[in-house]
Amino acid sequence: MDPILAVGSVAFDSVKTPFGEKSRVVGGAATYFSVAASFFTDVRIVGVVGADFGEEAMRVFGGRRIDLAGLERVPGETFRWKGEYGFDLNSRETIYTHLNVFEKFQPKIPDAYRTTPFVFLGNIQPGLQMDVLNQVTAPRLVALDTMNFWIAGALDQLKQVLRRVDILIINDSEARELAEHPNLVKAAHRIQAMGPKILVIKRGEHGVLMTRPDDGGFFAAPAMPLETVFDPTGAGDTFAGGFVGYLASCGEVTDASLRRATIYGSTMASFAVEDFSLDRLLTLRPEEVTARVSEFKRLTHFDVL
Amino acid sequence: MDPILAVGSVAFDSVKTPFGEKSRVVGGAATYFSVAASFFTDVRIVGVVGADFGEEAMRVFGGRRIDLAGLERVPGETFRWKGEYGFDLNSRETIYTHLNVFEKFQPKIPDAYRTTPFVFLGNIQPGLQMDVLNQVTAPRLVALDTMNFWIAGALDQLKQVLRRVDILIINDSEARELAEHPNLVKAAHRIQAMGPKILVIKRGEHGVLMTRPDDGGFFAAPAMPLETVFDPTGAGDTFAGGFVGYLASCGEVTDASLRRATIYGSTMASFAVEDFSLDRLLTLRPEEVTARVSEFKRLTHFDVL
Repeated sequence: MDPILAVGSVAFDSVKTPFGEKSRVVGGAATYFSVAASFFTDVRIVGVVGADFGEEAMRVFGGRRIDLAGLERVPGETFRWKGEYGFDLNSRETIYTHLNVFEKFQPKIPDAYRTTPFVFLGNIQPGLQMDVLNQVTAPRLVALDTMNFWIAGALDQLKQVLRRVDILIINDSEARELAEHPNLVKAAHRIQAMGPKILVIKRGEHGVLMTRPDDGGFFAAPAMPLETVFDPTGAGDTFAGGFVGYLASCGEVTDASLRRATIYGSTMASFAVEDFSLDRLLTLRPEEVTARVSEFKRLTHFDVL
Repeated sequence: MDPILAVGSVAFDSVKTPFGEKSRVVGGAATYFSVAASFFTDVRIVGVVGADFGEEAMRVFGGRRIDLAGLERVPGETFRWKGEYGFDLNSRETIYTHLNVFEKFQPKIPDAYRTTPFVFLGNIQPGLQMDVLNQVTAPRLVALDTMNFWIAGALDQLKQVLRRVDILIINDSEARELAEHPNLVKAAHRIQAMGPKILVIKRGEHGVLMTRPDDGGFFAAPAMPLETVFDPTGAGDTFAGGFVGYLASCGEVTDASLRRATIYGSTMASFAVEDFSLDRLLTLRPEEVTARVSEFKRLTHFDVL
């Protein structure tokens, strides 16, 4: 079982969905990732919060396998984001993004973290992601998340860091944009040629496509059909936490473990969306995770005669 | 192995996709359905064509297990449809629909067909679908396809016929519209309460969700990720042909056979989109079907430790 170094945003979110509205709840990519991954292994979080991120907010990390030595606290306000979801939860509008203390964030990896074998680079400026890689020593596996904003605005830097990445986790429209090809299979091959041999393409309510170098084929996992989806915020980061967390916990990256990691990621994400913010993850018990993985098996299994 | 009675349109299509354009090629729901289903069992097609549907066009049915005694030929022109697909093939615009001889179509089920155990009611006016059911005797299983046009314009008639249907095959936006609920799980339960206990929800490039009364759960099948998708026309009817065809060929409707039927339907559809019109289906060999079903197993399989 290997620990994970996770770098990314810790935030206060305000979210409006057809089912309700929450203001100033804890969010951020590194937060969702770390809480999800901590179900599987030890997580060392690197990020920054402002003076307003108090004891109450810090409680999401408490009693978990999350090491906070790399979480800086600086004067000023924590990163804030507000978003609103449409009727069917598939469309999202950003109302505002206030970087606040995140604007001058320079990831500083504590000495004790530099040899962490698994590294997760959350969705931040690609130059900062590169800074992190320059501070760690021979990681066994590097996973990276990014978004259309950086593909459009910092493509050269992103391509430089991708050369040093093993696993890229992005959504389908971002994959098409990065590869400049509308066909996902061809887009995947183009992206693999950029560096990351393992590619995870997130498709929201339609699940995940994962491909790896072994045989050039795909593994497809559906999303769990749910009666109650309250808030999709953080689903992608929670997926990443389950995916990388599972891989780090089993220590081997094989076709079989990557398939299981995809299912564990999908499982964690399926819980995250059932309530606002991190609320569902914070009450989640390991045996519920195991039970839902079995539900995924029933959801997808068939026998060929 | 039971035969299937298939009622629906036989047409000339004109199609434009980003990859090319074809005019006046053979199409129609009953055509795609019958060709796909004929890989599995005998199909008795009921429909109407005009005088312009000549020997060349009829060749798509030749050398297959398709009985044409119910395919009327009347004076006038065959049903014609023209559509154009957007860049990523997910959006489609209908340029024209000329019903022609289909406008006065009254399904007449030949006496010899009336006891056919499996019945497929392709996407036509719900009143005509009811006329078909009134002409058959105690079918073992009735499957029905419909579309948003009838949900919006002939809802009462549609609900009447749904009471006599075992399997409804529709796409996700139609399921939400019919059930008047944005959540697919809740929509599915509402639709099952309308009559059809087995519901197949098509999601295009995102695959299929199938649910059945056994345990209230879902079976999810992804679409096969393909490098070449030339023409999505007929994919849904081809899916239905593989789905109902497989069920009729194995004769039993169980959880296991419904799961396999979903995979066979997805397999047939994955071939249909690889070329224009029915071109790929017409050269398809049974061993290619078997091989792709195995690919679906590799695409979706995982082991829980």
